[in-house]
Order: sequence, then C-alpha cells, then structure tokens
Amino acid sequence: MTNLYFEDAEIGTSCTVGAYLVTKNEIIQFAKQYDPMPRHIDEEAAARSIFGGLSASSAHTFSIYILLSKKLQPRLHVLAGLGWDELKLRPDDELGLETTTLEKRESKSKPDRGILRNRVLLRNQRRETVLECISTIFVARRPNT
Amino acid sequence: MTNLYFEDAEIGTSCTVGAYLVTKNEIIQFAKQYDPMPRHIDEEAAARSIFGGLSASSAHTFSIYILLSKKLQPRLHVLAGLGWDELKLRPDDELGLETTTLEKRESKSKPDRGILRNRVLLRNQRRETVLECISTIFVARRPNT
Repeated sequence: MTNLYFEDAEIGTSCTVGAYLVTKNEIIQFAKQYDPMPRHIDEEAAARSIFGGLSASSAHTFSIYILLSKKLQPRLHVLAGLGWDELKLRPDDELGLETTTLEKRESKSKPDRGILRNRVLLRNQRRETVLECISTIFVARRPNT
Repeated sequence: MTNLYFEDAEIGTSCTVGAYLVTKNEIIQFAKQYDPMPRHIDEEAAARSIFGGLSASSAHTFSIYILLSKKLQPRLHVLAGLGWDELKLRPDDELGLETTTLEKRESKSKPDRGILRNRVLLRNQRRETVLECISTIFVARRPNT
C-alpha cells in the first residue's frame, strides 16, 4: 500500500487503529525511566492516589498515541509533527486511536509540503476518552513527475 | 525539603532544572518501542529527513520533559496532570527545563486541590526551544491541621 500525499488528504476523513493493551509491567517499566512517581510504579501508593490504582504516566500515554498514529491506514507521508493543541490525558489500559482530518493547507514557504490538522481521540475499552488533542503535522506533497 | 502546597504557589515564579543529555542510543531505543520511523532509528535515513540527522521522537522529548518536571525544586504536591495546550516540539540532544507559574485557582468542586497553569520551556544547549507548552496541573491544598 502506497503512502498518501498531502493532496490525497480529505477533510472529514476518519481513521481508527487499536486496541493496544497496556500491561502493568509496561506501565511500571516506562515510569521507572521517565516518571518515577509512586502512583505509576507502586501499586499500594497508586491505590491512595486520586486515580485509585496504578496509572500510566502521561508521557507513556502520549507515547502509545504516537505508536498507534504510525499504524493508521492509509499511511501518510508525514514529514514531522509540528504541535499539539488542547492535549488532555488520563491513564488507562486498553487503547484505540481515532483521528479526523480537520484542516489542510499548503505551506507558503516550503513547496514540498502541506499542513494537516487532525482531531485525535484515544479511547479505552469502555469508549472513554483517555487522550484528546488537535495535532498539526507536515505531510509531503506529491512530487512532480 | 517539604513539598509545596497549592497555597504556596506564586504567580510569576520560575524554576529550572537540567541539563539532561539525550544519547543517540536512548533516542534509538525509545523509538524502536514507540516510534519506529527510519528518521528516529536509522542514521542514514535520518540524514535524508527534514531534520538532517537523527532526531528524538516527539514522544521521547515529551517523556524527558515529564522526567525533568519531576525534578524541579521546590517540589509541588502534584496530584495529576490535566492538560497541555499549545504543545510544540522539536528534537534535540541536551535539554534543560524552565517553568513559570501563570495562573492559580482553587477547584470549585474538590476542596482538597487547586489548579495551576504553567508556561513550560525545554531548551537545548544553544538556548533554542525544543518543547513549549502550557501545562495544567492539580496541586494538593494544604490540609487543615
């Protein structure tokens, strides 16, 4: 399957991928390296946190979103992520991703690329949203042939 | 050193921590698990990317920001991260964090906590900004004694 170029993106298109099962071990291993707070690495301390149990680090949830976003079909020729607006996160355990294209525009200064804005939703197995944001990405324009 | 409560936070206070040196090996190991794109794991492919060299995954940069944020002094009784606005990232290698408190307000529904908004800047060794955002966090209010 070939990757889509900027020109192929259509406003309103939705894509989904998942579910990704986050294990307790993965939560603890990730948190030990990047977010070693008791609520992320110690089940007893986690039970006393405002989440009432072990929760993935926000950085971990964001990482799983990035991982799943690279698995969306059809794939885009993404050049880089530019920004994320209104990013909200809560931890959870089994995650599926949904993106919807909101806007597309050509770069004014770089003729090789366009800019897409997407509504991003990461949901758990109960369809509760655990991450939502608006992403902005560079996508390659189709080369002249 | 005791952790600060919501009441202790003052608008305009800045805190800094770092530098954190991101090794090539750490970039590749992180990306293999959460962002296995050639530009993050293969130096030759990375040289052809729009970054012109190996770059950390956005998820990795965000994770380092979370790691450094837990090392800021003085420490706050943070209950949870609520959201990140206007998050912008670019990859780099040696990172220092600066946060500035922008707003504080008491929670209307939960008397045990307040809400802080902070301007966040992660800079590299050339003082270029590699991550910026506005974070929103729950911070514990001082218990009645």
